[in-house]
Amino acid sequence: MSGRPPRAPKGRPERRRGRGRPEGGGAGSGSGTRSRPRPQVLSELGGDQVEGRRAVLELLTVGRRTVRRILLAEDQDPSVQLDRIEELAARLRVPVETVPRARLDAQARTEAPQGVLALARPLEPVPLEDLCRPGRGGTAPFLLVAAGITDPRNLGALLRSAECAGVTGVVLPRHRSARLSPTVAKTAAGAIEHLPFAVVGGVPSALHELRELGVWSIGLAGEAPQSLYDLPLGEGPVALVVGSEEKGLAHLVRRRCDAVAAIPQHGALPSLNVGVAGAVACFEVARQRAAAGAGTPASVPGARS
Amino acid sequence: MSGRPPRAPKGRPERRRGRGRPEGGGAGSGSGTRSRPRPQVLSELGGDQVEGRRAVLELLTVGRRTVRRILLAEDQDPSVQLDRIEELAARLRVPVETVPRARLDAQARTEAPQGVLALARPLEPVPLEDLCRPGRGGTAPFLLVAAGITDPRNLGALLRSAECAGVTGVVLPRHRSARLSPTVAKTAAGAIEHLPFAVVGGVPSALHELRELGVWSIGLAGEAPQSLYDLPLGEGPVALVVGSEEKGLAHLVRRRCDAVAAIPQHGALPSLNVGVAGAVACFEVARQRAAAGAGTPASVPGARS
Repeated sequence: MSGRPPRAPKGRPERRRGRGRPEGGGAGSGSGTRSRPRPQVLSELGGDQVEGRRAVLELLTVGRRTVRRILLAEDQDPSVQLDRIEELAARLRVPVETVPRARLDAQARTEAPQGVLALARPLEPVPLEDLCRPGRGGTAPFLLVAAGITDPRNLGALLRSAECAGVTGVVLPRHRSARLSPTVAKTAAGAIEHLPFAVVGGVPSALHELRELGVWSIGLAGEAPQSLYDLPLGEGPVALVVGSEEKGLAHLVRRRCDAVAAIPQHGALPSLNVGVAGAVACFEVARQRAAAGAGTPASVPGARS
Repeated sequence: MSGRPPRAPKGRPERRRGRGRPEGGGAGSGSGTRSRPRPQVLSELGGDQVEGRRAVLELLTVGRRTVRRILLAEDQDPSVQLDRIEELAARLRVPVETVPRARLDAQARTEAPQGVLALARPLEPVPLEDLCRPGRGGTAPFLLVAAGITDPRNLGALLRSAECAGVTGVVLPRHRSARLSPTVAKTAAGAIEHLPFAVVGGVPSALHELRELGVWSIGLAGEAPQSLYDLPLGEGPVALVVGSEEKGLAHLVRRRCDAVAAIPQHGALPSLNVGVAGAVACFEVARQRAAAGAGTPASVPGARS
């Protein structure tokens, strides 16, 4: 836990830089890119190629962004998910092309695209301050700061869990972090379609800005003496900060967190996987928020793959 | 939640069958297989080939079973983990062979063996009743029943999390479950070296037996009206039962659980990954046990990959 640091002068400009000006030059954020493939468009976030049945289904169902084209592999076994994908694509007038499996696999960037691949408008980041407003019904913001997760499977898995736990927004650093690549999108099983993302130049200054906006930040660090379970996470805006797979929280990130806490460990292994640690922490926040009546009402389903 | 079922006549014989008589004919459980490769030995559990740096390091460090041989890929960048593996191998007199990367990769059964592969005596299952005895310091048993997880990455990830949460034993069904394959071993990051495993012919009769032995079983089911957080999990022997990725808990398994509960969901996605749901549930048991003073004392580290 660190003292309240002096106000960082870079805080505000940072936020401005993050506002919808993707590195690739801003193309793709306007309209007019509808059903034309524009592979040269680079987004700060990614998300332009989505593979796997769940991820594509969620992309079409949520409808937050334009889907330009869907490729389906020939000769697939009947599947409720594939039927639903074709049905939604027809309704949304998204062109569907049936191609040989080999062609689909050649274009795929994940190991197992499950016979389906969608090309869509990339995801656009939102300004950090947008993530800090109360949600529908006055729900307090519940943010996840993925401060340097570079393995796309870890990031994707964490985003899926975070969405299920009721996280309302995600902060990603511009550098040294996985983007929303096809592997992230697939592992996230559609979570990227639901979550708003802010991209920040530096996590320390973003944490400073979060504090100014009334969000309490908690860094997860295995070696912290403070237990996560002893923190009051149930009320008010919170941001969980998860560090990199290899090095945990960077020194300055750790210093800028309002609290640093550990998930108590009871085994012989040195550490949890970063995605699982993040998930356990997200569900602890969710548990406390539900108990305090601050979270969204708990809903139905759970434990499947 | 089901009523107390009539005593299953198959309960006891089941347990006897599980007692150290692997499907491959029992070879490998005796001594004398020390440094000779015996690829024909099949174990009911597996674990005879371990890949990945953490998994091999844990295999050597724990020393629960004989390691016959280690293969290292040539021309690897210096690594503290590889140095430690060589050092431990020398101390334990395990032959280390340096081979071309291509040969190691050809023998590997995971995608990324990280330049190291160990051949070891397979893991031996223990009788179910052995898992139901109090641990050191009188710790109440805390079991995980992986009732039909077929994806090796899901099972491996769950075993790693379970070990970190203080699970004291794992129950696997003989059929329709992943074994402790190289992918499971690698994803589990060494957890398989610490956990005792029982292999059972049928999960329903195992749950019946657990009840007879005083273990309270809780099935995880997303659609259950009962919240996991409202159950008293902190005292006495408990077994968490996690179903398959696709179908969740089988009907009869569900009926035989003493309680069925959900992790409340707060997002739009239909469900958590099964390994994450299991991890969140394991850490909820750990949290309650620590609060009740029944668990092992919480120890240090946490959130890395």
